[in-house]
Amino acid sequence: MKKIINDPRNFVEETVEGIISAYSKKVKCADGDLRCLVRSVPKKSNKVALATGGGSGHLPLFLGYVGQGMLDGCAVGNVFASPSSSKMLKVTEYIDNGSGVLYIYGNYSGDKMNFNMAANMAESKGIKVEQVIGNDDVASAENSNKENRRGIAGIFYIYKIAGACAEEGYSLDEVKRIAQKTCFNVRTLGVGLSPCIIPEVSKPTFEIRENEMEIGVGIHGEPGMGREKLKKSDEIVEYIMNAIIKDLPFRKGDEISVLVNGLGATPREELFIVFRMVSKILYAKGINIYNTYIDEFATSMEMAGMSISLLKLDNELKSFLKKSANTPFFQQEELI
Amino acid sequence: MKKIINDPRNFVEETVEGIISAYSKKVKCADGDLRCLVRSVPKKSNKVALATGGGSGHLPLFLGYVGQGMLDGCAVGNVFASPSSSKMLKVTEYIDNGSGVLYIYGNYSGDKMNFNMAANMAESKGIKVEQVIGNDDVASAENSNKENRRGIAGIFYIYKIAGACAEEGYSLDEVKRIAQKTCFNVRTLGVGLSPCIIPEVSKPTFEIRENEMEIGVGIHGEPGMGREKLKKSDEIVEYIMNAIIKDLPFRKGDEISVLVNGLGATPREELFIVFRMVSKILYAKGINIYNTYIDEFATSMEMAGMSISLLKLDNELKSFLKKSANTPFFQQEELI
Repeated sequence: MKKIINDPRNFVEETVEGIISAYSKKVKCADGDLRCLVRSVPKKSNKVALATGGGSGHLPLFLGYVGQGMLDGCAVGNVFASPSSSKMLKVTEYIDNGSGVLYIYGNYSGDKMNFNMAANMAESKGIKVEQVIGNDDVASAENSNKENRRGIAGIFYIYKIAGACAEEGYSLDEVKRIAQKTCFNVRTLGVGLSPCIIPEVSKPTFEIRENEMEIGVGIHGEPGMGREKLKKSDEIVEYIMNAIIKDLPFRKGDEISVLVNGLGATPREELFIVFRMVSKILYAKGINIYNTYIDEFATSMEMAGMSISLLKLDNELKSFLKKSANTPFFQQEELI
Repeated sequence: MKKIINDPRNFVEETVEGIISAYSKKVKCADGDLRCLVRSVPKKSNKVALATGGGSGHLPLFLGYVGQGMLDGCAVGNVFASPSSSKMLKVTEYIDNGSGVLYIYGNYSGDKMNFNMAANMAESKGIKVEQVIGNDDVASAENSNKENRRGIAGIFYIYKIAGACAEEGYSLDEVKRIAQKTCFNVRTLGVGLSPCIIPEVSKPTFEIRENEMEIGVGIHGEPGMGREKLKKSDEIVEYIMNAIIKDLPFRKGDEISVLVNGLGATPREELFIVFRMVSKILYAKGINIYNTYIDEFATSMEMAGMSISLLKLDNELKSFLKKSANTPFFQQEELI
């Protein structure tokens, strides 16, 4: 296990300590709890609060998006494991402003169970809670069964757009509607080339041959649509784009946002070789790119691979996507 | 060779095409030449122009820092190889505004030879050229022989500070002085845990055992101070900090900027575990952190490892470091 770490049992706490130490102007721990990250700047009165949570090992997901224009709090789990419902409740109580809390998280059984428990406990304390569950990964279930799909890199868009909406002072119902619309309009598919190693486990999450790739790999190394021989970048991108485009479907004349996400070990150079082909395919299909994000947004530590997400925009979604954001792991000036 | 690429011979061109395609509002190719990247926004009249150049495979270095508040142009070489003097000259002629051009680049023999040739050719065409060479890597030569040290991640600070100075309208001599002061005040040391593979070579740049690390590895995989058994993160950080702090030396009461740089495959989580210890050591020594950068700034494609850079600040350097910047790979709002 070749990692720059100390005792694997302290991996999560030490990571969060580093983040808090570096970005104390932006984030802090609620009541000093390293598993409960919240904004350090005072909340606007009456602002709907947004919370997420999930396993560690996916930076910038999940806690990296707590900050201005995005989330208000995040419950932090062990590596690839759901945070507990008590941490989610603590975050919920800390960030609620009286206008209610929207939970936005990935579609994983542990997270669902714990967020539901936290929501029930919060409601019993008089906090209104709504939920939107990211399910952008087209590899993980048929289109007809979309509610069973996993949430992966596309959840970034839900945080970004719902976050801007909440920042503008919209009601809980409105922020939920916008988050759901974003969720409905985003599709992702990725490939994995190598596994990662969970510090406390110290064995690779899966085995894969030197000439193979896993199409549709999940961000915990879950199997996707199957193993194939590693192909050229342009062929991989064509395969992914075909699968995503027909799934929504995206059509000629649509305006979209593109996110190319590195899973961890894949160099930025390769992400741009990927984007080059993405933009060619979109141009040929008459689908217009409004803006692009090319970086690491949802990782699996040192896994090699990448995913492509497309978000179909309308004027309403665009008006929120373009707003500024300022979190430890994501900054955007308002787009012109 | 497990990479998401097409023909390895097209690696650089396809990477640049992807960057241009994604960030056309910020950068473009001079005269359509994919090896000559320049800002796409009009230059301020009389602004001193800043150019860099170097091998590919180090994103965000070098071309990623062309943009508002940093560089005006970059000559792009093959992977880990210097760009030609003719490309440097083309960039120089394109970005010169009549106020002269400052070259800022790493201390590598190919780059030095080619930048010197380009400078001579530019001078013969009436363009005033000055040079500042980054040499922040304490592993690569003794302190008494600093001019022979390699330039690695710390060059980011020279781009940032000299870039802000040029943007403010200072003269070529003044921008050079500020760049030199930054260069004098920055120190870096890193560790490498795994090699990377040059696409056209398709063999690892070096061999290293599963339980070893290379202390002071260069960003092309150059050997550093030697191999050691891989230690705990806190021990690695202590070793690095001791070496850096005594080299300048940094002293109690100093105000500094900290940069923790991932070399490619090392997860962000580990960079924050590193920073946690960096901040503890600085606190204990009474050295004050003005701001921090924790991300990938100078990589070796999929090499695992990280480096720590410290920059000693004074009011003048701080006044430029804090300014806003907006390039494809680095954005900063003016610091308060």
